[in-house]
Amino acid sequence: MALVDILHMNSGSGDSSYTNNSLFTKIVMQKTAPFLKRTIKGMANKDILSDHCFMIADLGCSSGMNTLSLASNIIDIVHEVCQENNRKTPQFQVCLNDLFGNDFNNVFKLLPNFYKTLRKCKGEQIGPCFVSVVPGSFYGRLFPDESLHLIHSSYSVHWLSQVPEGLENNKQNIYIAKTSPLDVLQAYGKQFQTDFTKFLQLRYEEIVHDGRMVIVFQSRSSLDPTNDECSTLWELLIMSLLEMLKEGLVLESDINSFNLPFYFPHGDELRRIIEEDGSFSLDDIDIFEVDWDQHDMECNNRGKKTTKSIRAVTELLFSSHFGNSIIDMLFKKFEKKLADHLATKKTRHLCVVISLIKK
Amino acid sequence: MALVDILHMNSGSGDSSYTNNSLFTKIVMQKTAPFLKRTIKGMANKDILSDHCFMIADLGCSSGMNTLSLASNIIDIVHEVCQENNRKTPQFQVCLNDLFGNDFNNVFKLLPNFYKTLRKCKGEQIGPCFVSVVPGSFYGRLFPDESLHLIHSSYSVHWLSQVPEGLENNKQNIYIAKTSPLDVLQAYGKQFQTDFTKFLQLRYEEIVHDGRMVIVFQSRSSLDPTNDECSTLWELLIMSLLEMLKEGLVLESDINSFNLPFYFPHGDELRRIIEEDGSFSLDDIDIFEVDWDQHDMECNNRGKKTTKSIRAVTELLFSSHFGNSIIDMLFKKFEKKLADHLATKKTRHLCVVISLIKK
Repeated sequence: MALVDILHMNSGSGDSSYTNNSLFTKIVMQKTAPFLKRTIKGMANKDILSDHCFMIADLGCSSGMNTLSLASNIIDIVHEVCQENNRKTPQFQVCLNDLFGNDFNNVFKLLPNFYKTLRKCKGEQIGPCFVSVVPGSFYGRLFPDESLHLIHSSYSVHWLSQVPEGLENNKQNIYIAKTSPLDVLQAYGKQFQTDFTKFLQLRYEEIVHDGRMVIVFQSRSSLDPTNDECSTLWELLIMSLLEMLKEGLVLESDINSFNLPFYFPHGDELRRIIEEDGSFSLDDIDIFEVDWDQHDMECNNRGKKTTKSIRAVTELLFSSHFGNSIIDMLFKKFEKKLADHLATKKTRHLCVVISLIKK
Repeated sequence: MALVDILHMNSGSGDSSYTNNSLFTKIVMQKTAPFLKRTIKGMANKDILSDHCFMIADLGCSSGMNTLSLASNIIDIVHEVCQENNRKTPQFQVCLNDLFGNDFNNVFKLLPNFYKTLRKCKGEQIGPCFVSVVPGSFYGRLFPDESLHLIHSSYSVHWLSQVPEGLENNKQNIYIAKTSPLDVLQAYGKQFQTDFTKFLQLRYEEIVHDGRMVIVFQSRSSLDPTNDECSTLWELLIMSLLEMLKEGLVLESDINSFNLPFYFPHGDELRRIIEEDGSFSLDDIDIFEVDWDQHDMECNNRGKKTTKSIRAVTELLFSSHFGNSIIDMLFKKFEKKLADHLATKKTRHLCVVISLIKK
């Protein structure tokens, strides 16, 4: 089955659901809020806030409380910017996008309350806001020509369109690791370049002239992806799998043929791809650190919440390859290893947020 | 709880789901196809097919195979009309609308195949088609100002925004019946007039100048709603409830306080409301008959399929008022009565389809 048919965050609102394990994305959203504000302020100078309806797309919106918070944040900022510029706040169309299997029904349940709160807080000050859902892969067209003013995507565009080809030599690894051969690094890098270039070209068609795109990626600090402090988590996962191999719970061939379909680009890589493609100019870039375990520290339960977050995001990939039966054990082992790791080290990782202007 | 929070067709794809019991709506769709074609041909004369993206909304789209068939039909017709007029077929944005509780996840599962078929059948002949979902009540705003070219709604606008007030005297009835007092008839008629007028005014804001609206209603042949051959089904339902009352399975007070929130307008009533409101002009009207039990006849199983259709549409209303426990028994009794009825009579009913042009 194609990746786009499998991939989505865990559904529903249960203990393992993405809804209940997306605090991390909330932290990232808070960190990028000032950046987003700068971008929208930049739009006011270009007069594109004057259209009667401000069209926003959130690509890879997933299904949780954060899904609608982003819309609220953007509406707040646009409203503020319009007031500063003595302009009437426009109507809003918020288009939420994720893959076909995403639990949108869960988002729809939150909508009546979202609308109620918006009316209560803003009253007649802003025009109506319309929320729609546009399911599908962002590696294909999603919106009509030149229909969007602002595209936003957080923690999604580092997902590749497919597992890169040519990873046969990445044995006993599931992502780029210190022991991965050079051709594996190249295959991942090449796939990201192909995918991100396609992403830029598709969005170029969909965005209005002078429109903006804000994208947040998980990133890395070193140009060498094997020298990446962020890969700790994936190394703990492979260690758990290898332990299960020894216990006869998984097959070696299954491990060798499994690789995760994401790539965390360095800021310089992004600059290069954007420049080579030429559809957008890079308006702003910011790099910041977050702790994977920040919410674990808050609730004094080292590793537990981080494990749930990682599980909510990756469970379907593991279960569709290894079967459902290994999942509980895999994440139990992972949690133990993570707790040991966190006792002495941090799992900081780098994020990069970019703002692009359509040329 | 408000009606908009309860009401939706049965979810999922099981035996009682709307998905598996919506053959009736398919028949109606086939019957109205030539009417829809006439309407779209009329648009070609007015040049509004020249916009680069043809925006369609289907209000009350529900969740079944028919949901996407309507989009296919419209795309086919627009494509044909454009070819006849030597015009480039536009891009399409299809906005599917239903209440927040509708099972949209079920629709999204059908989308990859819908896109695949479209590409296969039409290839490069038409621009891309984008499907989005806009959840919410059509008794509130759903779309930005002047954003739609064609609004379609089948078998939905006869649902009222609420159960009419002042039905206290409609004892031992659940809809307009021969024994209903005059004030009950008036309360239903007034609620429909209020709701439909509001519907017209809201859509007026959302549709472009010269845009079209095609609406299919369940209707009736007599101006007197108590003299309506279509009310047989609801009378069989109340008879089933009254039988359960005798058996001590439901409370009389529960029956007396329950009324169904729909109204089947006569064609003349529609003309009058449209004229009084003045936002749209009536361009075309057609009236036709359908048999509730047409698919029962086809599968030689009198009453069974019709019962499932009625159950898929009304189950949530009954269960939220009477509790889940009565549902199986209620529809078992109903099916029996319906089979007896169909042995000697037809359950034909009238549909009216109208085409409106924004003034």
